[in-house]
Amino acid sequence: MARHDYPATGAWSVGQPVGNRQFANFPSDRPFALDGGKHLHDVTIAYETWGSLNSDATNAILLCHAWTGDSHVAGPARDGHPTPGWWEGIIGPGLAIDTNKWFVVCSNVIGGCQGSTGPASPHPEDGKPYGSRFPVITVRDMVRAQVRLSDMLGIARWHSIVGGSMGGMQVLEWAVTFPDRVKTIIPVATCAQSTAQQIAWGAIGRRAIALDPKWRGGEYYEAEIGDGPWQGLSIARSIAQVTFRSDNVFTERFGRELADTDADYNGLGLWDRFEVEGYLDHHGDRLIRRFDANSYLIIGKAMDLHDIARGRGTLESAIKRIAAKTLIIGISSDILYPSYQQKQIHQMLTQQGTESTYVEIDSPHGHDAFLINLDQVGAPIRSFLEESFNE
Amino acid sequence: MARHDYPATGAWSVGQPVGNRQFANFPSDRPFALDGGKHLHDVTIAYETWGSLNSDATNAILLCHAWTGDSHVAGPARDGHPTPGWWEGIIGPGLAIDTNKWFVVCSNVIGGCQGSTGPASPHPEDGKPYGSRFPVITVRDMVRAQVRLSDMLGIARWHSIVGGSMGGMQVLEWAVTFPDRVKTIIPVATCAQSTAQQIAWGAIGRRAIALDPKWRGGEYYEAEIGDGPWQGLSIARSIAQVTFRSDNVFTERFGRELADTDADYNGLGLWDRFEVEGYLDHHGDRLIRRFDANSYLIIGKAMDLHDIARGRGTLESAIKRIAAKTLIIGISSDILYPSYQQKQIHQMLTQQGTESTYVEIDSPHGHDAFLINLDQVGAPIRSFLEESFNE
Repeated sequence: MARHDYPATGAWSVGQPVGNRQFANFPSDRPFALDGGKHLHDVTIAYETWGSLNSDATNAILLCHAWTGDSHVAGPARDGHPTPGWWEGIIGPGLAIDTNKWFVVCSNVIGGCQGSTGPASPHPEDGKPYGSRFPVITVRDMVRAQVRLSDMLGIARWHSIVGGSMGGMQVLEWAVTFPDRVKTIIPVATCAQSTAQQIAWGAIGRRAIALDPKWRGGEYYEAEIGDGPWQGLSIARSIAQVTFRSDNVFTERFGRELADTDADYNGLGLWDRFEVEGYLDHHGDRLIRRFDANSYLIIGKAMDLHDIARGRGTLESAIKRIAAKTLIIGISSDILYPSYQQKQIHQMLTQQGTESTYVEIDSPHGHDAFLINLDQVGAPIRSFLEESFNE
Repeated sequence: MARHDYPATGAWSVGQPVGNRQFANFPSDRPFALDGGKHLHDVTIAYETWGSLNSDATNAILLCHAWTGDSHVAGPARDGHPTPGWWEGIIGPGLAIDTNKWFVVCSNVIGGCQGSTGPASPHPEDGKPYGSRFPVITVRDMVRAQVRLSDMLGIARWHSIVGGSMGGMQVLEWAVTFPDRVKTIIPVATCAQSTAQQIAWGAIGRRAIALDPKWRGGEYYEAEIGDGPWQGLSIARSIAQVTFRSDNVFTERFGRELADTDADYNGLGLWDRFEVEGYLDHHGDRLIRRFDANSYLIIGKAMDLHDIARGRGTLESAIKRIAAKTLIIGISSDILYPSYQQKQIHQMLTQQGTESTYVEIDSPHGHDAFLINLDQVGAPIRSFLEESFNE
């Protein structure tokens, strides 16, 4: 049998203040309208901030997180934060995004499970978790929630909006939808429209979660702790994990080493694993301890639906709306968001006369290089932000 | 909920003579020893032949099939064959592998579900399907079964052994393990050793099958027809299907079209699909109608275990055993078996003084191009076979 004994613990936090995390509660009398036609009521957005907003509010930088990220960009995994900051080493005093200079904000996306309203949150009507009642959201919806947060924070115009992967999708949507509210943008390892292959990977992961009998059609919140859809979520995460990395690095790191038996095939069973399988299981196990399967589904769907051209005619006409000076970062070995996608955005901006710079990270690590090769990512971000401050 | 109502029918054939399919039954008193240390008894290998063996048995070509292939290389989907020939257009009178000249043989691999002994076959002890009792096999085991078949057919030395993907793995194992028994080889879109990334994809698919409650630990043969692990198998197939194709072709063919609703996102649900999802579901549905999930598991594991260097020191020393003149075919857009893997084999052969030619198929179709771009695949095969006949 498959060897996956899932942890007895496994929890996600909803609306609990931890560390420096704060909460913005949207007014109850202003329902939040979604692209899918539905409305959410009593929306909460969790966020963290670093540094200080200057008197004319011109030093604010918004960071946008990726699929399973959250507002915890920098800082250790304590005070209830399930993971260390996802861009630790980029954000902080003296670092590329220098918190002595900049006021940095990051919010958990709507639909998430680290403090913002998502499927695990109580439905206002009955106080029970939304579960399968949580509506489909889009990246544009995520951005609209961030706009409300910006208003509450008194930030009329961000000096820059920065993010990788799904974070980069939000960055582009911001610049297209609210061109007056952002001076510069830094989309990293992302795309203007999800492609069929990207959608395929997302959809297969969703099917794996739905196949898990413990998913229970999304209504698993009242099940015993440890009795949730961990296996399905772990499989979905494994699919993503392979697309986040690269063939070469997998070969170098794991080769063909067996994990569960010695090198000999004698007595080998169908479920004895190679090292790479142990690695995937490890990443799956880590995710299920900190992330809600329904949030994974909802946010994954939002990525598949991502298309800055939706309702705007062509991609060219959508990109024409971008007024922000742009630094686009791609990764040479990215198989999930191949660098042709970032180059395409750069070329369209340049052709349309919007100032754009394209920088390619030379890394073997694949898509995740934006979280790994921090020197290469940090250097162009630092110069771009500093140069643009006085412009 | 996920929209996958699986067919009420769904069967695989075991030991039923269909069309030109014949059966080789290994003698009961000679158990078949496997790399994993176990033995199989009363093994049957299903095979088909085309053309006539000449008097000195020098015109025989062995074709090796891929993961979900079978012995039916050419011919229509009738007489019980679930699919048309997998290399229809390559094999036949006047075609690249001309059956007016060559005696062509293809056998269903051991572990398969189209006539050869596999998990759905009756266990000699109790007559019930092996199910989870079926042992792990390797590509080398598949080849050893083909060697026994060769003996029974009176073929001491094949003029050529040809195959793509897992077929190519068998081709290489033949040439390394039995160098005296093969004059030339044509491995297509394949590798000498499975890489960590290839193993990862295989392993994730296995986990999806095991997650399906209807897999029942492999003991589903007595369940009602239509109550097997179709959803898990369909998900596993979807993962493979994405790796078999390419980003570009998916974009061109499916774009971002929605399949289940109109282009508007208004009212869109979590399980409404894009066109590419419909395509993946279609391929999954086709596979579950014709293929046994336990065979999929066993054969997939064999591919992950594939390593021509196992027990032979280095890869170089394994390749040094190859005496056969070689035509290696790679595919420019193959993301699953990238062409660097075929070039590596070609370079090692050349360095060691074994005559080798490398041809790259220029195609956007990815790994499956060897089943699609038949003109490009057929032309070098035809010349190579004809030139080598009189050598």
